Amino acid sequence: MVLNKVVIAGVGLIGGSFARALKQAGAVRTVVGLDRAQASLQRALALGIIDSVGADMAQVLDGADLVLLAAPVAQTEAILAAMAPYLQPGTVITDAGSTKSDVVAAARKALAGKVAQFVPGHPIAGRETNGPDAAIDDLYLGKKVVLTALAENAAADVERVEVAWRATGAIIHRLSPEEHDKVFAAVSHLPHLLAYALVDDIANKPHADLLFQYAASGFRDFTRIAGSSPEMWRDISLANQAALLTELDAYLAQLTVLRAQLAAGDGSGLERVYGNAQRARHQWITAIETAEAPQSADKAD
Amino acid sequence: MVLNKVVIAGVGLIGGSFARALKQAGAVRTVVGLDRAQASLQRALALGIIDSVGADMAQVLDGADLVLLAAPVAQTEAILAAMAPYLQPGTVITDAGSTKSDVVAAARKALAGKVAQFVPGHPIAGRETNGPDAAIDDLYLGKKVVLTALAENAAADVERVEVAWRATGAIIHRLSPEEHDKVFAAVSHLPHLLAYALVDDIANKPHADLLFQYAASGFRDFTRIAGSSPEMWRDISLANQAALLTELDAYLAQLTVLRAQLAAGDGSGLERVYGNAQRARHQWITAIETAEAPQSADKAD
Repeated sequence: MVLNKVVIAGVGLIGGSFARALKQAGAVRTVVGLDRAQASLQRALALGIIDSVGADMAQVLDGADLVLLAAPVAQTEAILAAMAPYLQPGTVITDAGSTKSDVVAAARKALAGKVAQFVPGHPIAGRETNGPDAAIDDLYLGKKVVLTALAENAAADVERVEVAWRATGAIIHRLSPEEHDKVFAAVSHLPHLLAYALVDDIANKPHADLLFQYAASGFRDFTRIAGSSPEMWRDISLANQAALLTELDAYLAQLTVLRAQLAAGDGSGLERVYGNAQRARHQWITAIETAEAPQSADKAD
Repeated sequence: MVLNKVVIAGVGLIGGSFARALKQAGAVRTVVGLDRAQASLQRALALGIIDSVGADMAQVLDGADLVLLAAPVAQTEAILAAMAPYLQPGTVITDAGSTKSDVVAAARKALAGKVAQFVPGHPIAGRETNGPDAAIDDLYLGKKVVLTALAENAAADVERVEVAWRATGAIIHRLSPEEHDKVFAAVSHLPHLLAYALVDDIANKPHADLLFQYAASGFRDFTRIAGSSPEMWRDISLANQAALLTELDAYLAQLTVLRAQLAAGDGSGLERVYGNAQRARHQWITAIETAEAPQSADKAD
């Protein structure tokens, strides 16, 4: 299936790589770009990521098969509201946001009766860089894309989104929006919060310079995700507030147990926790390697 | 200065690499190995890491210029107690333990009046592998070695340890044992505890398999140190109990603040913490890169 017209709202790393991969696969005839930044649009045009710069929304959406929202999640509702009046029955919209319950709520509000045309998604991929110049053909090759389809979605519309992502080399997974947000609160959003908290904690100590002097590779890896965009992670934290609070509370309870073991000099208790963690992580890494699954993802995984 | 005779107690990665580097630099004439595992001693001998296997302690220590303890920290007191009766005035002992206050206490107990001959140290280096076969010539090249000299140490004895480590390519730093333990509680021991805690927390959830399925590179890096030896980190946690509790409590206080910000939907509060962390980490990474300092260390950094 070749898509006649794809609209990319946000022509940076995520949107640009989607367009590049579709073109590379011969899965699209023309790509129209939308972006708040005119410079990004011109750059995406010059790089051949998009074929034209969208101006009038009616014209942009006219005859579009697929729209990908790849702008910051906080803009989702405004973009969908701007599109809603011009959204034709034949167009399917999907997105690339790191949280899903809030995106679904925004879509219901902005699209109202047309929400069935919105198929929420989350590609688990990325790089440390951003903007149109960061976009590459194979960003999604072998990576997971989680679709959190709505009850209202027509099977054929979900299928259109799946086919497009498969053309980029991605592997499709399905979760409900709530499952998605719980899963990513645990394995992505909480670790980000914890890494930011540790670096901030150390940076605020009077002898921070001395401490950083002796921080080595273990610290560097542990805190790598604290190099991510603070604005983006503020938005993700708030968008997934409930699930993140649940995970944070479970973690605080876990730390409280470990603190008591440490204070009591309970070596066998500590070793039980450390050993269980080491075994679980080893099994996970082994499973990944066995599956020859992709091993890299992004700051916003 | 060429050392005539060096004794390595523990012929694995740390001790073996020390011996290899000294030999490579022509800084030692003969190396004697001690180890609980006969197989390790024979392997170290076959690999040329040591020149002879130590048997009788009086003979091992006779005429030794330098002894490096590179066995698990929990064995420090027993090894020093076994050496004490045969320790000649011309011999200097150092160690490679990840904690220092406990090692100093063990040395004072085991060596008593001879404690002036013990110069505590901690090389900030390592690899994921262990045993004599893991030992390499350049493990310490460009790496930091922290010496935490005692008030009793003669300047010439500290100098002998420094010269030996410099011959391996290491850069010498000096801290007090207490400073050392506070610093490493913050930048190494606490992150290990936090990483173990997160993986154990997730592994114990009923839907752990689903969660691990979506864990990506951010999670992998954050938890890499949870792949370290549980026994070793149990010992380090207990050996540095007081400093680690202080750091853990500071971190729990920090998480409590973040939890309140999250629960209140305080986006600017979260962004302040995240942003401060991102800036501090960026400055640290930039400083490391500017200094062209070594960028790798071990599981026990």
